[in-house]
Amino acid sequence: MIPAPYLLYLGHSDDSVGIKTSRGLAAFRRDDCVGEWRHDDSPLTLGLPRLDPAAARAAGARTLVLGIANAGGTLAPDLVEDALAAIAAGLHVAAGLHQRLRDHPRLVAAAAAAGVELHDVRDPPRDLRVGDGKRRAGKRLLTVGTDCSVGKMYATLCLRDELRARGITADFRATGQTGILIAGEGVPVDAVVADFISGAIEALAPARADDGWDLIEGQGSLFHPSFAGVSTGLLHGAQPAALLLCHDPSRAHMRGLPHYELPTLEECLAANLAVARLTSPDVRAVGVALNTAALDEAAARRLCEETAARLALPCTDPYRLGASPIADEMLTCFAP
Amino acid sequence: MIPAPYLLYLGHSDDSVGIKTSRGLAAFRRDDCVGEWRHDDSPLTLGLPRLDPAAARAAGARTLVLGIANAGGTLAPDLVEDALAAIAAGLHVAAGLHQRLRDHPRLVAAAAAAGVELHDVRDPPRDLRVGDGKRRAGKRLLTVGTDCSVGKMYATLCLRDELRARGITADFRATGQTGILIAGEGVPVDAVVADFISGAIEALAPARADDGWDLIEGQGSLFHPSFAGVSTGLLHGAQPAALLLCHDPSRAHMRGLPHYELPTLEECLAANLAVARLTSPDVRAVGVALNTAALDEAAARRLCEETAARLALPCTDPYRLGASPIADEMLTCFAP
Repeated sequence: MIPAPYLLYLGHSDDSVGIKTSRGLAAFRRDDCVGEWRHDDSPLTLGLPRLDPAAARAAGARTLVLGIANAGGTLAPDLVEDALAAIAAGLHVAAGLHQRLRDHPRLVAAAAAAGVELHDVRDPPRDLRVGDGKRRAGKRLLTVGTDCSVGKMYATLCLRDELRARGITADFRATGQTGILIAGEGVPVDAVVADFISGAIEALAPARADDGWDLIEGQGSLFHPSFAGVSTGLLHGAQPAALLLCHDPSRAHMRGLPHYELPTLEECLAANLAVARLTSPDVRAVGVALNTAALDEAAARRLCEETAARLALPCTDPYRLGASPIADEMLTCFAP
Repeated sequence: MIPAPYLLYLGHSDDSVGIKTSRGLAAFRRDDCVGEWRHDDSPLTLGLPRLDPAAARAAGARTLVLGIANAGGTLAPDLVEDALAAIAAGLHVAAGLHQRLRDHPRLVAAAAAAGVELHDVRDPPRDLRVGDGKRRAGKRLLTVGTDCSVGKMYATLCLRDELRARGITADFRATGQTGILIAGEGVPVDAVVADFISGAIEALAPARADDGWDLIEGQGSLFHPSFAGVSTGLLHGAQPAALLLCHDPSRAHMRGLPHYELPTLEECLAANLAVARLTSPDVRAVGVALNTAALDEAAARRLCEETAARLALPCTDPYRLGASPIADEMLTCFAP
């Protein structure tokens, strides 16, 4: 386990989506976060005290979380410099990039000298199996999306909390670096060897017979030309009884790809159901989750109502307005 | 490069599809193969002289190719023992399994002592990029299939030879261990980290402006619940102008999965075209390639005719009956 509490890194970022790992920890494990570290050129904030590594250490922080996501997961030079500064201040360092902290000789040497740890959370488990697609017991929901970073993890965690508040057993199955940092376990599905994508998810959410739900965090999008392979294998491995479609209505184009438009909700849902049916013939949609952070509350509520009517499915912003309509639909559709 | 000529390993196998790497080398680089090594319990043959490692070495062989494919790509104990015997006889050893020869201490020690090399051909290139889906110049064909191991590589290589015989520039882009051993280069797409599947194929078949064709070897199937993620990323990264659908009419169920039926040719083609359109909106099918090895020639020709009529596309067994109908269709559809 990665020692808490955390200093959350924003660095030089001006991309509010790019800091999603730091933001996710601030949202779902706020009690474990003592501050945020941003440079003067970053306009972003998570509403935490602004601290540098030394001040954070003095305030009790134990680990700097390099909570930045970039396409390709590279460990850029500014990240290395800042990680070295954190190590010098006595902090452990955690990251979820494809390029590993432990593969960087200067970081390894500095950490050894300072007696602190480097944590790479995007390491897939060893001994993964190839998926077999065999029908397995248990109720599983998977969040799917029109794009990357549209709120799949938030929706999954909010739904877990709503179900648990109703006394229903529900577990969050993390598949990305942020989710794994929040949950303390999971499988970074985009980092496994390609042949093992579906098998990794079969292992993450195995058969269960306790009538509880596995709520599986989705990744990417079938409509994202960089990452749809991951999304496809995840759908097949999840063998979901239920899909929850996630969308950010403020997104102008596919993330990182101005030359790609977003799919409509209707075509996105139809494509995900079609792919999911290969391993879960009776899969059904149980709702739409919108990330309405860019709208005022009245507009957010109106959009949810309009979307619900258009798709004939419950629609909410689970983080802002609660996951209740989706939980209702699940309990109705999957009543014993 | 892996030193030729080769001794092809069949081992204890009784699975004619499982020895596809040895079979592919025997089919497409026969002049480089001096013999096959099989144990008494294997009923299989590639029609080469049956030799043990010492006899093969005496006959001029330089490398044992462990040309066996199994789901998960494990280096089973019998393979290790036989590789040690080959090393003792003075042969290099090549394999394309997920478990690497170089990660096996006994093999590494024995190879060092004998002064021979271990070649792992399933190593993905370093410094892969995430795919970006940008439209790029050039004509690309991708083979897709109803299942794994239905003849995609054979069809791709036969089509290359047919186009070249007509004076058309055409290059084979290998994506699997067998293709890479035949071509001497390529990207083992099922072994790359999942986030980089489409990017790996964008790098394998970059923009080209010489009016030649890149003929990309497909992998897996959109309908195989173990591997569809690979197939999806491959489709997106290939950005194909043309798809060639491959099928083995003798296949009773999805390979390795008796609980999964094969899709129909019609649904398989429709699904592949739909996925491919994300990055290549004008993609079109140019034919169907059948592996008719289980049929007599009259039945094979009849099935090709019936399939062509049913799908309104050229259909042939490119290895047995020639790739001419498919080449004709490509040249008609993509005339300058």
